[in-house]
Amino acid sequence: MTHTLRASIRALSGNCARHSTAAVSSKPRHLISISSLSPAELGYLVDRASHYRHLIKADSFSIGAERLTLLGHTITLLFSKRSTRTRVSSEVAINYLGGHPMFLGRDDIQLGVNESLYDTSRVISSVTSAIVARVGPHSDIVGLSAASSVPVINALCDTYHPLQAIADILTIKESFKNLAGLKLAWVGDANNVLNDLATACAMSGINVSVATPSAYPVNSSVFANVREAASVSGVNIEVGHDPLAAVKHADVIVTDTWISMGQESEKQLRMQQFAGFQVTSQMANKGGAKNNWKFMHCLPRKPLEVSDEVFYSDRSLVFDEAENRLYAMLAALDGFVVKQGKLE
Amino acid sequence: MTHTLRASIRALSGNCARHSTAAVSSKPRHLISISSLSPAELGYLVDRASHYRHLIKADSFSIGAERLTLLGHTITLLFSKRSTRTRVSSEVAINYLGGHPMFLGRDDIQLGVNESLYDTSRVISSVTSAIVARVGPHSDIVGLSAASSVPVINALCDTYHPLQAIADILTIKESFKNLAGLKLAWVGDANNVLNDLATACAMSGINVSVATPSAYPVNSSVFANVREAASVSGVNIEVGHDPLAAVKHADVIVTDTWISMGQESEKQLRMQQFAGFQVTSQMANKGGAKNNWKFMHCLPRKPLEVSDEVFYSDRSLVFDEAENRLYAMLAALDGFVVKQGKLE
Amino acid sequence: MTHTLRASIRALSGNCARHSTAAVSSKPRHLISISSLSPAELGYLVDRASHYRHLIKADSFSIGAERLTLLGHTITLLFSKRSTRTRVSSEVAINYLGGHPMFLGRDDIQLGVNESLYDTSRVISSVTSAIVARVGPHSDIVGLSAASSVPVINALCDTYHPLQAIADILTIKESFKNLAGLKLAWVGDANNVLNDLATACAMSGINVSVATPSAYPVNSSVFANVREAASVSGVNIEVGHDPLAAVKHADVIVTDTWISMGQESEKQLRMQQFAGFQVTSQMANKGGAKNNWKFMHCLPRKPLEVSDEVFYSDRSLVFDEAENRLYAMLAALDGFVVKQGKLE
Repeated sequence: MTHTLRASIRALSGNCARHSTAAVSSKPRHLISISSLSPAELGYLVDRASHYRHLIKADSFSIGAERLTLLGHTITLLFSKRSTRTRVSSEVAINYLGGHPMFLGRDDIQLGVNESLYDTSRVISSVTSAIVARVGPHSDIVGLSAASSVPVINALCDTYHPLQAIADILTIKESFKNLAGLKLAWVGDANNVLNDLATACAMSGINVSVATPSAYPVNSSVFANVREAASVSGVNIEVGHDPLAAVKHADVIVTDTWISMGQESEKQLRMQQFAGFQVTSQMANKGGAKNNWKFMHCLPRKPLEVSDEVFYSDRSLVFDEAENRLYAMLAALDGFVVKQGKLE
Repeated sequence: MTHTLRASIRALSGNCARHSTAAVSSKPRHLISISSLSPAELGYLVDRASHYRHLIKADSFSIGAERLTLLGHTITLLFSKRSTRTRVSSEVAINYLGGHPMFLGRDDIQLGVNESLYDTSRVISSVTSAIVARVGPHSDIVGLSAASSVPVINALCDTYHPLQAIADILTIKESFKNLAGLKLAWVGDANNVLNDLATACAMSGINVSVATPSAYPVNSSVFANVREAASVSGVNIEVGHDPLAAVKHADVIVTDTWISMGQESEKQLRMQQFAGFQVTSQMANKGGAKNNWKFMHCLPRKPLEVSDEVFYSDRSLVFDEAENRLYAMLAALDGFVVKQGKLE
Repeated sequence: MTHTLRASIRALSGNCARHSTAAVSSKPRHLISISSLSPAELGYLVDRASHYRHLIKADSFSIGAERLTLLGHTITLLFSKRSTRTRVSSEVAINYLGGHPMFLGRDDIQLGVNESLYDTSRVISSVTSAIVARVGPHSDIVGLSAASSVPVINALCDTYHPLQAIADILTIKESFKNLAGLKLAWVGDANNVLNDLATACAMSGINVSVATPSAYPVNSSVFANVREAASVSGVNIEVGHDPLAAVKHADVIVTDTWISMGQESEKQLRMQQFAGFQVTSQMANKGGAKNNWKFMHCLPRKPLEVSDEVFYSDRSLVFDEAENRLYAMLAALDGFVVKQGKLE
C-alpha cells in the first residue's frame, strides 16, 4: 500500500466508530425511548435525520467522512418479531455507513430460551458494535441494555418505538416546516407508537389530542411524562375516546392498525370496539380538522383503520414516513454508535 | 481525509449507481423475461456476463472502476420461495460490486399478507436500489414492478427465468464458440426455464426442438413469441412429445426436474407421464444426437430425469451453468441497476 | 479514478485472497479438526488469534494490509443447526476482513435433501471463497470438503469443534501466559468440544484429566490420537469417571452442557447420570484443584452443569472464551482462506 493511501485512510479512520472490543471506560448510552432524550437531543436527532435525508436525496453518494464511519463494524439486528420497515431501514442505514448488519431472527436466537438474556447480551456485545433490538416485552430491552457493553437501540418493543417517533417528527417538519403550535390527533389504539410519538410531540411544541376506544386507555405513566414535557413546552395534551372531538382543528391525523401482531384472535371484538375510529375524509370534515390536514400511519396498514381515499391521497404522508425511518436510523447510529451518545 | 483520496473517490463515484431515493424522472426499467429484451440487448447481456466471467477467472480481483459500482447500495432479495443458486449468485454478485444484499425470505415477509403488495413494493423500493425477486406467481413480479421506483429483476417466477437463460446462452457460447445454426433439444417438463431459454435461443440463432409429455404442453402464448423471434433470426422451432425425435442432430440436450417445488404429491403420476424422458447416453444415441452433444440442467437435479453417466460426464455443462448464474446476475445488475436499463 | 488510488489499490490487492473461481492447481486445504494440524501449526493459529485480539483490543481499526484481505469475497456460512457463537464470530470475522458472510440456514438449504451433498458443495464452492460449515454428522463435513474447490472450515459437527479449541488455548494462554505443565480437567459429557480440546492440550503441553459419566465414555479413536500427541509433548492424559479425582491439582476446570441440542427428551435420565458432575467451588475444593483454578465453558450454559457462584465469578473465563471465538475465526480465515493453508 502506498504511503498516500495509508495516510489517507489513517485520516479517515479518525471519524470512525470505536470497535466494540476496545476497552470501555464507561457504560454505553442506549436509545430506549423518546423520554430518555432531552428536547434538545430529540431536536438534534431530527436535524441529523433531515441532514441524511437531503444528502441522500441529492444523490451525494460519495465516500466521504460522512460515510464509512462503521467500516469493519458489525451491528447485531436482534429481532424476536418480524418487522419489515425496521429490518429494511436498519440494514440499509448500517450498510450506508459501511457497517455489516448481522440479522438474527426468531429462528436464529430465542432470547432467554437456550441461555440467559444476560449471557446472550454480554457475548453479542463483546464482538459487535451495537445491538438493534426488535423485541416483544419492554423488559427484554431493559435486560439487553443492562448487560450490553455496546449501545442498544430499541427498534420496537411493546411499549416504545422511538425511531418511528423521530421519523414522524421529521415527516411533519418536512411537510409543515414549523412545528410550533401544530395539532396532532391520534385516533386509534393506545400503543407503543403513540407512547413515543406523544412524548416527541410534547417535546417539540406540537399539541396532541388522543382518542382511543374506552377499552384501551392510554398508558398512564407514559402520559404523566407526556404532560410533564408538555408543561415545559407549553402545549396541550388531550386524552379521550371521541374521534370527532380529537380531530378538531387537527393539522395531522394519525392512526395505526387496530389488530397488532399476536392479536388476530381478538379481531371480531376489536372491530366492534373500534367502530367509528376509521379515518376517512368524511370523519375529518365532520370533526372539523383543518383544511390542509395530513394523514400519517407507520404501516403496515389494513383497510379497517383508514379508507383508501385518504391513504392513497395527496394528504397521505405514509410513504414519506416509511422512507424517513431510514434517516431516523442513520441519525440514531450516528448519534449512539459513532458519537457514543454525545448528541450535540 | 486528504485531498488526494477525496478527489480519487469523487472520480470513482462517477461510475456508481444512482441511489434509490434520489429523485427519479422516469419509470425504471425492469428485467421481467427474455421477451422484454431485443436480440441485441440479450447479446449485450451475454457478452457482459462473459466479460465478468473472464475477469473473475483471471483473478483480476482489483478494486477498479469495474467494481464498487454498488458501494453503499442495498439490494433487496425478496424470496417467497427457496432457491439456492438464485440466492447464492445474487449475494455473490451484489457483494462483488460493493453492494449489500438484504435477504428477505418467507419468514421475513409474506407478499400481500400483512399489507398490500403495492405498499410493500413502494416502501422497499424507496430505500433500496433494486429488488431481486424470486416469487411464485408471475403476477407478483408484475405487481412488484408496477409499484417499484427502482428496477425489479425477476430471479424466478412460475412463468419466466431470464437469468437462467442468460447463463445458459453464455454456457453454450463458451462451449461451442459460435451459436448460429446450433440445435438445442429440450426434453422434459414445459416450465418457466424452457420459456425463457427457448426465447433466448430463438433470438440467438439457435434451433430449438422441444419434447414434453402430452399432459404438459408448452405455454402457447410464450411459444407464439418464440416463433416470432425465430422468424426474424431464421431458426426452426419444433414442439412435440417424442424425446427421440427431439434429440435428433442436437448439439445440446437440456432437461430439468420432473417434480418441481410444490408438486411432490404428484410424484407417482408424473413418473408415469415422464416415462421415456430420462436423458441417457443410450437415448441420445438412439435418437441420433450429434457425437459431441452436451448436456445441460439448471439444477437442483434428481436422478429421475438424467442418468449419472451423463450428468457427471465430460458432456455435462451443469456446473459451468451454475457458475455462470453468477456472471448473468453481474450483467443484470450492471445493466439494469448501474446503467439503469441502457443495455448498450 | 486517479492514478494514485489505482496504484494504491493495486498494491493493496497483492495481499488479498485469491478468488474462488480462479483456476485452482491443487486441492484446497480444509480445517476439519485439530488433529489435522501439526503442533506447530496449532501454535501458529493460536498466535495469529492472539495477534488479532490485541489488534482489535487496541482499537487499531485501520484499513491496512491486515484488513480487507477478503474484500469482494463471499464466504458461505452453511448452518444445518443453530449456533449463536459460531454464527456471530463468523460474520464479524468475515466482515472485519472485508468479506461478505452469506448465511444459509436450515430453511435456506437442506444438505442432501433437494440435491446431493456433492452437487451442493461443487456449486457453492464454485462461486464463493470458502465454506464455514456448522453441521450435524461429521460425514457432512467429509462430504462437503471432498467436493469443494475452496477451503471448508468445520465450525462445529458432532465429532469436532476445532475453532472452540483454538479459542480455548488462546484463553488459557492469555490467562496463564505459559502453557507448559498446566493441568486441564474436563468434567462432563464426552463430546465434540472435548475431542478437539483434549487434542489441542496434548499438542500444547497441557496435561488433561477427563471425568465423564460411565454411560458416556470418551471417543476411543480420538483419544488414541490424543495419547499419541501427548507422548510427543510429554504430558499426561487421564480418563475416568470421578469428577473429584479429575480436578485434583487442576489449573482449569472445563465443562459443557449435559443436554445438547436434540437430547432434550433424555433430560431426566441424563440428570441422574450426571449427578455429582456440577462444577461448584465446594467440589473444586474437595477435589483439590489449585487455589487459582479457572473455569471455562463454551456456552450456551445451563445452571445444571455449573453453579452461578462459579460461572459469574472472577475465576470464570467464559466471556473471554466467547470473545476469543472471534479471534480464532480470524486466524482460521487468514490461515486457510487468505494464505490457502500455509500456516507459517
